[in-house]
Amino acid sequence: MQFVATEHQHRRLNPLTGTWVLVCPHRTQRPWSGQQEKAQKNELPDFDPTNPLCPGVTRPNGIQTPTYEGTYVFENDFPALVEQVPAPPNSDDPLFQIAPARGNCRVMCFHPKSNLTLPTMTAAEIVVVINEWINQFNELSSKYAWVQIFENKGSAMGCSNPHPHCQIWSCSFLPTEPQLKQERLRAYYATNDRPLLSDYVERELQRRERIVIENPDWLVVVPFWATWPFETMLISRNNNKRINDLTVDQRYNLAVTIKELTTKYDNLFQCSFPYSMGWHGAPTGPEHAHASSAHWTLHAIYYPPLLRSATVRKFMVGFELLAMAQRDLTPEQAAQKLREVDGKCHYLEK
Amino acid sequence: MQFVATEHQHRRLNPLTGTWVLVCPHRTQRPWSGQQEKAQKNELPDFDPTNPLCPGVTRPNGIQTPTYEGTYVFENDFPALVEQVPAPPNSDDPLFQIAPARGNCRVMCFHPKSNLTLPTMTAAEIVVVINEWINQFNELSSKYAWVQIFENKGSAMGCSNPHPHCQIWSCSFLPTEPQLKQERLRAYYATNDRPLLSDYVERELQRRERIVIENPDWLVVVPFWATWPFETMLISRNNNKRINDLTVDQRYNLAVTIKELTTKYDNLFQCSFPYSMGWHGAPTGPEHAHASSAHWTLHAIYYPPLLRSATVRKFMVGFELLAMAQRDLTPEQAAQKLREVDGKCHYLEK
Ligand SMILES: O=P(O)(O)O[C@H]1O[C@H](CO)[C@@H](O)[C@H](O)[C@H]1O
Ligand SMILES: O=P(O)(O)O[C@H]1O[C@H](CO)[C@@H](O)[C@H](O)[C@H]1O
Repeated sequence: MQFVATEHQHRRLNPLTGTWVLVCPHRTQRPWSGQQEKAQKNELPDFDPTNPLCPGVTRPNGIQTPTYEGTYVFENDFPALVEQVPAPPNSDDPLFQIAPARGNCRVMCFHPKSNLTLPTMTAAEIVVVINEWINQFNELSSKYAWVQIFENKGSAMGCSNPHPHCQIWSCSFLPTEPQLKQERLRAYYATNDRPLLSDYVERELQRRERIVIENPDWLVVVPFWATWPFETMLISRNNNKRINDLTVDQRYNLAVTIKELTTKYDNLFQCSFPYSMGWHGAPTGPEHAHASSAHWTLHAIYYPPLLRSATVRKFMVGFELLAMAQRDLTPEQAAQKLREVDGKCHYLEK
Repeated sequence: MQFVATEHQHRRLNPLTGTWVLVCPHRTQRPWSGQQEKAQKNELPDFDPTNPLCPGVTRPNGIQTPTYEGTYVFENDFPALVEQVPAPPNSDDPLFQIAPARGNCRVMCFHPKSNLTLPTMTAAEIVVVINEWINQFNELSSKYAWVQIFENKGSAMGCSNPHPHCQIWSCSFLPTEPQLKQERLRAYYATNDRPLLSDYVERELQRRERIVIENPDWLVVVPFWATWPFETMLISRNNNKRINDLTVDQRYNLAVTIKELTTKYDNLFQCSFPYSMGWHGAPTGPEHAHASSAHWTLHAIYYPPLLRSATVRKFMVGFELLAMAQRDLTPEQAAQKLREVDGKCHYLEK
């Protein structure tokens, strides 16, 4: 019997983390009678006087959100990370290791209107978002080792406020995922004298099996090692190391790429597609200011939970938590679906 | 300012995987207006003629579930892993590594009645479950490197069938999590000449801060490095390496311990408490039959998603997926709540 990736289970290695994912494509045939998500509909008013992220509304702590245009950034009223915090005592017991964590948490509104999302904003409006990401990154990266810009979109991804926004959590330390990438990217560079993701982009452009969107500045692929059903990576083709490296043209092309990718996502199941996304690039802060970042490539990762429809998601539970990640369709099948779905016209405009 | 773990954010190391978790106890104060789970109520009939796991019902593939008493095990009708599958071609490109995966997936019903769960079954009935786990493990471990017994309970954990059951996925390879543990446990043993988890049990018994249940055979703790809000580990105190090592007395005590722990879980928020749980022990199969398992300790892990009530869960999204695990109350606070809640009388019986 000949091996066929779309029929025969196999494992694939994520070279960025060193972990494997189990691919079981034949499994999409099973019937689903479990939990159904609420399909996200865009039926919000553009202004909700009870939503603290809307312009002019007073937040629970008494501070009034200004009547902003464009973006608006404020310190999270319930931050996970704060700056002034005493360090825990040292422990020399390997089973009870504890370490300090300082940081900062901000919320960033994308637009004054509650009923917009990135795919329904214009490219020019998305450029404003990108410029504000860069402003924030410039300020925070001078102080912190890691600045995590991320967006949780949709209630299925734990997002508690439908107003278009993201968060920025800054850390005095390198968290687990970036630390793993730092080590693996460095090792690859030491052996190959090239950034891992530059080589990866080149080979994906040759193989052409997992490409979703391609333009001179950016490549969007469903990575060979994708875990979530429609996971994508948006990778810089210009050897950018961090988000604040981007030229004006690269920013504009990024806005167009984000709009196209998120439009494809929304059109796939005709819903406001939930996901968590975020940016990864070379570490920052005084600690990393003088270290080489040659092994890094700026990229964003999208982790969307939906599997088969607007209401049926993939659960990462049981086997996945206890043993290893597992996916039900191949990355190539997911890429083909995303490639074929319209990325220009949003279903709400049709 | 003095460091106080219940007030000041910090990081803790999981020595079994080498990853850190961020602990942000002050964060439980934030209001929650996001997705609410359906509280799981035990309002099922004991027999549902449309449920394929009930005795005597014909499954979609035409096979009739026998009128079983006790437990019933069958091959999963939609298995993620099958035995006969061709191996993928070798690849020498480090960015496109693919590996074979063979295996087997079984479903195991705990009891003929649909409206029971482990906490509402008797200890004697749970012993029947444990004995069947061991039967299955004996058979499958002769062939496979890893036999993952796991239970997904509740729709919040992706469980698509409310009948009390678990799954057993067997793998021809060591999955990511057990592989990581294998390496770390071995390294600790090489340095300390003791299994890591034996030392851990001893120190938890001295510190007495994270104990939930304690008896001569088993210790249940919220581990120092717990990720999920009410995560627990149920650890053998008898240097057992695998589930099929257990003596008749240890099995009975395990049944009592499982009943007590899951009763506490249900009583905590007065609901049928969702979780994913599973067993970890020394690897098996021809490949590991002659290797030393001295560094291993048999243990079960419970990952429950609920955070504050029957309907408010912790979402592992954005920051957690992109940067690192993060929790909102300390393991000591969670352990205290679980210690104090009744583990003898289930709220439905009150
Ligand atoms: O086989 P089930 O219970 O239908 O499926 C559930 O458990 C599996 C193993 O953890 C997961 O892969 C699925 O995502 C989940 O929905
Ligand atoms: O801050 P939010 O959006 O209320 O909270 C959400 O994102 C956080 C960061 O990923 C998570 O820790 C929370 O579990 C999630 O509900």
